[in-house]
Amino acid sequence: MTAFASIADFEAALARPRKADGKAQEAASARQMSLTKPAGSLGRLEEIAIFFAGWQSRERPRLDRARAAIFAGNHGVAAHGVSAFPSAVTAQMVANFETGGAAINALSATAGLELEIVALDLDRPTADFTSVPAMTQAECLDALNAGAEAVEPDLDLIVLGEMGIANSTAAAALCARSLGGTAADWVGPGTGVGAEGVTRKVEVVERALAVHAYAGRSAFETLRRVGGRETAAIAGAAMRARQLGVPVLLDGFICCAAIAPMAADNPAIADHCIAGHCSAERGHALLLDKLGLDPLLSLGMRLGEGSGAAVAAGVVRAALAAHDRMATFAQAAVSASP
Amino acid sequence: MTAFASIADFEAALARPRKADGKAQEAASARQMSLTKPAGSLGRLEEIAIFFAGWQSRERPRLDRARAAIFAGNHGVAAHGVSAFPSAVTAQMVANFETGGAAINALSATAGLELEIVALDLDRPTADFTSVPAMTQAECLDALNAGAEAVEPDLDLIVLGEMGIANSTAAAALCARSLGGTAADWVGPGTGVGAEGVTRKVEVVERALAVHAYAGRSAFETLRRVGGRETAAIAGAAMRARQLGVPVLLDGFICCAAIAPMAADNPAIADHCIAGHCSAERGHALLLDKLGLDPLLSLGMRLGEGSGAAVAAGVVRAALAAHDRMATFAQAAVSASP
Repeated sequence: MTAFASIADFEAALARPRKADGKAQEAASARQMSLTKPAGSLGRLEEIAIFFAGWQSRERPRLDRARAAIFAGNHGVAAHGVSAFPSAVTAQMVANFETGGAAINALSATAGLELEIVALDLDRPTADFTSVPAMTQAECLDALNAGAEAVEPDLDLIVLGEMGIANSTAAAALCARSLGGTAADWVGPGTGVGAEGVTRKVEVVERALAVHAYAGRSAFETLRRVGGRETAAIAGAAMRARQLGVPVLLDGFICCAAIAPMAADNPAIADHCIAGHCSAERGHALLLDKLGLDPLLSLGMRLGEGSGAAVAAGVVRAALAAHDRMATFAQAAVSASP
Repeated sequence: MTAFASIADFEAALARPRKADGKAQEAASARQMSLTKPAGSLGRLEEIAIFFAGWQSRERPRLDRARAAIFAGNHGVAAHGVSAFPSAVTAQMVANFETGGAAINALSATAGLELEIVALDLDRPTADFTSVPAMTQAECLDALNAGAEAVEPDLDLIVLGEMGIANSTAAAALCARSLGGTAADWVGPGTGVGAEGVTRKVEVVERALAVHAYAGRSAFETLRRVGGRETAAIAGAAMRARQLGVPVLLDGFICCAAIAPMAADNPAIADHCIAGHCSAERGHALLLDKLGLDPLLSLGMRLGEGSGAAVAAGVVRAALAAHDRMATFAQAAVSASP
């Protein structure tokens, strides 16, 4: 079944997103207050448990089935020399994911996540968005649906990530077009271009913003004009997860940039998402601030491929384990604070 | 075998601590540069792998056997009403640890840590350090050795933690006596006393500092005069871990306060330690700064019992897994950056 049969379907989902289950959140809060620890002393771990209770709609949320879905795409804009690596690396890294040699393989296994790699037409890069839209409407809708397909109703968590040479340039364009600011506010070294490369990226993003300045500014139009297949897929996956009540862990700058166009249309759209980490990539801290997301980790990571969010999934696992397994003051016969 | 047969033994160990294996660190650094990711893009995870390589003295450090050792003690100073909980809670929580109902049970299991609980003479609280030393020399030496005993040579990591009603007051006294500053710089609400309780804690710490002002200022003297059995045990465990090349994950304010007297004598003494997290307890950020430790996590936790460090152990596990299992550019036939 196609999640979004039409652009209108996607836009309707974006306009009226599911709400968290307030009753389950209250029950989880009450449980936290009864556990053998000073009230509030597990800090963010308590908030995570209550957050998951709300979206999973159960007092004691679980993490039996958690998935990392990593989307890969290639970019016409790579022709402008905006990356330290050649475009061929996207497919090479997908092969590396499939044989188990990448960071996300080790990190998803450590966090107990099943790993799904979705390579999106790697031999057919998006068009160069400095002159035309990156994707046709049909291509963008296909990518949204490819993302949505990675979200199954019985998942307890989905970690979203990406791989795509040149996609930090697309991400900067998504952010600037959705949230304002200059190209320079959103451009960083990505995989590691030098100062000259950053200047080139800024010029490319400025040109893209100018070319698409008078086009429609809906989330869908921004995703298709200056995004890539993998960012559209992340948007579709996040949207589908919201429909199904599956909590989302977002990864770094590019992953979060995929959410920016939807957040510009509906600021509540990331309410079911936790930012796994704050990346070292320049624009991420600003982006998290604009999205209203407080990252779990800040470890100077900037790899993408879901790596930071996969590490954060370990923190989520810890939070839910404490919430589920701890004894109450009454059960353990521990004197509560007067 | 007793690790520290005399005070002089302990002081000799503190004066001449083991150094990390530079060769193993270099080999681990070189390995990191060869793995399929942009150089440096795993940020802190790369640093963790190299740090563990140095202390475990192997290019690819492992985490086959990792332990959380949680020390519990009772405090004469509790009589001054410095805690929100009665002293009986220390033993009640130890029972809770032993039956598996506490946060540390869930968190250590999630991180794959074996859990050792060491209750130190709970029915014999330390003396009230506002008038006399908390411990005799023999008592303090016993506590140091009890800590050292929890460290076995084949451990790949030890997480240190504590439980002891009133021990955030002792921790503040340890910090002020070791590192300077006023009592108020180091006192916080602990398990949750109000403003009046904080004022009382400040007065208690000020009195302790005055009473012991003219006594010897060695690490041992400070640990025994204003510390507790559990903080002395943590100091002994950290010292023993250094001798054995076992990396240490420190927990929150009280755990780190146990290191402060040793750091005042020898600033290099925490070189084999990583701060698992920055606690919400008032003095912890300042203490970490004075110890030169950059915490892995900052999740607003303030529970103690090793909880923050146990969550951080999951990050360490992720770091070592990536370091060990990732393919190199050559192995995966991925084009490296030019």
